[in-house]
Amino acid sequence: MRTAYHHQLAELTVQLGEMCGLANEAMRRATQALLEADLDAAERVIREHDRLVEMRARAEREAFALLALQQPVAGELRAIFSAIQIIADIERMGALAVHIAKIARREHPNRILPDDLRACFADMAKVAVALGENAKQVLITRDPERAARLREQDDAMDELYGNLFTALLDDDWRDNIPVAVDAALLGRFYERFADHAVEIGRRIVFVVSGDLPAPDEITTY
Amino acid sequence: MRTAYHHQLAELTVQLGEMCGLANEAMRRATQALLEADLDAAERVIREHDRLVEMRARAEREAFALLALQQPVAGELRAIFSAIQIIADIERMGALAVHIAKIARREHPNRILPDDLRACFADMAKVAVALGENAKQVLITRDPERAARLREQDDAMDELYGNLFTALLDDDWRDNIPVAVDAALLGRFYERFADHAVEIGRRIVFVVSGDLPAPDEITTY
Repeated sequence: MRTAYHHQLAELTVQLGEMCGLANEAMRRATQALLEADLDAAERVIREHDRLVEMRARAEREAFALLALQQPVAGELRAIFSAIQIIADIERMGALAVHIAKIARREHPNRILPDDLRACFADMAKVAVALGENAKQVLITRDPERAARLREQDDAMDELYGNLFTALLDDDWRDNIPVAVDAALLGRFYERFADHAVEIGRRIVFVVSGDLPAPDEITTY
Repeated sequence: MRTAYHHQLAELTVQLGEMCGLANEAMRRATQALLEADLDAAERVIREHDRLVEMRARAEREAFALLALQQPVAGELRAIFSAIQIIADIERMGALAVHIAKIARREHPNRILPDDLRACFADMAKVAVALGENAKQVLITRDPERAARLREQDDAMDELYGNLFTALLDDDWRDNIPVAVDAALLGRFYERFADHAVEIGRRIVFVVSGDLPAPDEITTY
C-alpha cells in the first residue's frame, strides 16, 4: 500500500516535469513562429496545447486522490500542496506560448517584429526557455539552491523587458502603432512566462524546507 | 474537535471572500486612479497590496494545516483543494490592480487615456469589478448557478477587449505610440482580472459538484 503510494507520488513529480517540458517546447516553437513567421510551428503550438490541458486535469485528479486516500503529512503533503499550485503555473506558461503563436499566425506570412526589436525578443525567448528548463530540472531534482537561483536568473528578463519598453517609447522609434501594440503584449507574455518559472522555484523551496520565500516585488515596466 | 475543524473550514471561506473583496476594491481604486489621475488612489492600491499578500500567506498556512491535521474527504477536501488554487487567483487579481495603479502613478498628473478610449476602459472596469463581486458572492454562497454564469458575464469583457484593439489598430486612430502601448497593457490587465474571476467560478462548481467545467478557449485579441 505504502509502496503504491510512493509510486503515485513519484509519478506526480514525473508528470509535472513532463508538463513543464511541454510548456518549454511550446515556448521555443512559438518563438520560432514569431521570429521566422513559421506557420507550422504556430499551428502546432496552438493544437498541442490541448495535451497540456488534459495533463493538467489528470495531474489535478491524481493530486486530489493522493490527498483523499493517503492522508499525507509533512514533506509529502508539502509536495502535493505545491503540486496543486505548480500545475496551474505550468498550464499558464503553455497558454502564454499559445498567445504568442496566435499573434504569429494572424500576421503570417509577415514577420511582426521590425529588425531593431528582433534581437530583444530572441534574447527574451532565450531567457524564458532557460528559466523554464531550470524550473523543470528543479521540479525533478528538488535542488533548493537551483530553485532559489531562478529568481536571480529572472533579473535578466526584467532588464530585457525594461529595454523593450525603452525602445518602444523612444521618440526616435519609427514604427507604427500596430507593431508597438503587438510588441508590448508579446513582451508581457515572455515576462510572465519567466515569472511562473520563478514561482515554481519558490514552491519547490517550500517543499524542501517548509519555508516559502517572500514573493517578488511587482514590477511594471 | 470536529467542531473546531468546521469552524476553521468556515473561517477559510470567510478569508477567501475578504481577500476577493480586497482585490475588487483595489481594482475599483486603480480605475479611479487611471481615469481621474488620482494619485492618492494609486498610492493606496500599491501600498495596500501587502495586506493581500499577507492574507494569501495566512490562508495558505491554514489550508495546509487543515489538510495536515484533519484529513478531510469528499466535499470538504474539494473545498480546501480549490481554496489553494483560488488563493493564487485572488492574489493575481490584486497584482493586476497594482499594475494599473503603477501606470497611473507614473503618468500623474496627466491622464493617460485619450477621450475616445476612456469610455471603453470605464466599461471594462465596470465589468471587471462586477465579475469580481460575483466571484466574491460565489465564494461565500457556493451557488453553482451563479458560479456558472460568471463565464457568460465574461463575454462582455471579451467584446470590450476586442473593441479596444479594433480602436487602437484603426488607421484613423491618431494618438501616439506610448498611449497605444499603455492602453494595450491596461486592457490586458482588466481582461486577465475577469479571467481569474471566471476561474474562481469554475473551481466553486467543482467544490459543489465534484465536476470541473472545461476551461475556456484561449482568446488572443
